[in-house]
Amino acid sequence: MVSGGMDSCVTAAIAAQNYEMAFLHVSYGQRTQERELEAFSAIADYYDVEKRLTADIGYLREIGGSSLTDENIPVAEVEPENGVIPTSYVPFRNTHLLSIAVSWAEVMGASRIFIGAVEEDSSGYPDCRKEYYREFNRLVQVGTKPETHIQVVTPLIDMRKSEIVLKGVELDAPLHLTWSCYKNTVRACGVCDSCVLRLRGFRKAGIEDPISYQQLDS
Amino acid sequence: MVSGGMDSCVTAAIAAQNYEMAFLHVSYGQRTQERELEAFSAIADYYDVEKRLTADIGYLREIGGSSLTDENIPVAEVEPENGVIPTSYVPFRNTHLLSIAVSWAEVMGASRIFIGAVEEDSSGYPDCRKEYYREFNRLVQVGTKPETHIQVVTPLIDMRKSEIVLKGVELDAPLHLTWSCYKNTVRACGVCDSCVLRLRGFRKAGIEDPISYQQLDS
Repeated sequence: MVSGGMDSCVTAAIAAQNYEMAFLHVSYGQRTQERELEAFSAIADYYDVEKRLTADIGYLREIGGSSLTDENIPVAEVEPENGVIPTSYVPFRNTHLLSIAVSWAEVMGASRIFIGAVEEDSSGYPDCRKEYYREFNRLVQVGTKPETHIQVVTPLIDMRKSEIVLKGVELDAPLHLTWSCYKNTVRACGVCDSCVLRLRGFRKAGIEDPISYQQLDS
Repeated sequence: MVSGGMDSCVTAAIAAQNYEMAFLHVSYGQRTQERELEAFSAIADYYDVEKRLTADIGYLREIGGSSLTDENIPVAEVEPENGVIPTSYVPFRNTHLLSIAVSWAEVMGASRIFIGAVEEDSSGYPDCRKEYYREFNRLVQVGTKPETHIQVVTPLIDMRKSEIVLKGVELDAPLHLTWSCYKNTVRACGVCDSCVLRLRGFRKAGIEDPISYQQLDS
């Protein structure tokens, strides 16, 4: 599952070590849809991935409830308190994404679904926690054919952003091709919570972020 | 969740007894998409439901793997053996449908999702079993906001088709507005496994099916 952000890029780099890959991107009416798709294609080209699927679940925009899909809800420029779900939370989003991956994997006969979810350093989304993936894997077992054994794996789930940066550098992941910003601008904004987390990760890792920003918070 | 078939219609009739309803229909590139949508709208009108959402997950057609979404896979005219998954199985389909319902329910503040899944009398789909719904409800608990408590309920899950017919008649469900056939014809075919199960249910219930058929198997 490749959004086009840094986490999914490093996850692909990890999967590439042991698996033949197929890339899935999901558009859900998020503000940065086109920019993400561009990053997705660039990363897929980088890894020479032939099997690509782009799925559109635009109904999430109609359902609304998130600053990522509803223009009337502002993108937060400060991080929420611990335990508070941020406005960028898209209700139950990862289940939609993973379900598409499971259907595709079952038809292709794939054995693993890699997703770059991060628990500790993430923004408090309920569907980024280990517990969520444990439950989802149980659902896949009971909800697919008896002979199907697909497992969702989350190699980054316990990492901090700085560790993800270092892992990406170690594996030659094309971090320069990624897009993490929640705003739809030519250069990343540098102030939304996704940019802030990314920049802090690079700083802590002692690595310079290869993409350029509109404004830097330090 | 209203496909437009008999089971979802009777489920709506049950929900209508205690809840204000919102109707969700999902198109996934199935052969009978338009005919189903027509039935959905007619049943929504019958129950005076204002909140309606139609979601398109057409990417399931691109993924394929089912006779319902792939024109190259024939619709079976005989029932599969016990334990064999029929060709009409759409990989992991109900998880896609339910995820949309959960996202919408969370944004609306709805407390229950009604789905007309049937375990005993169904065609052996893995995502129609009670075990699947138990797991899915666990996933909803861990995958939504802490203050969200949505429960998926399956009032028909233990019923046989004949009992569903009788329950529908008892509750004045508009069975004459429903569409169950897997083929895209003006009148229901009467021979696909969905038609066969429905007709047998009416026969066992001693009730005449109010819709008309191209051919009858008795």
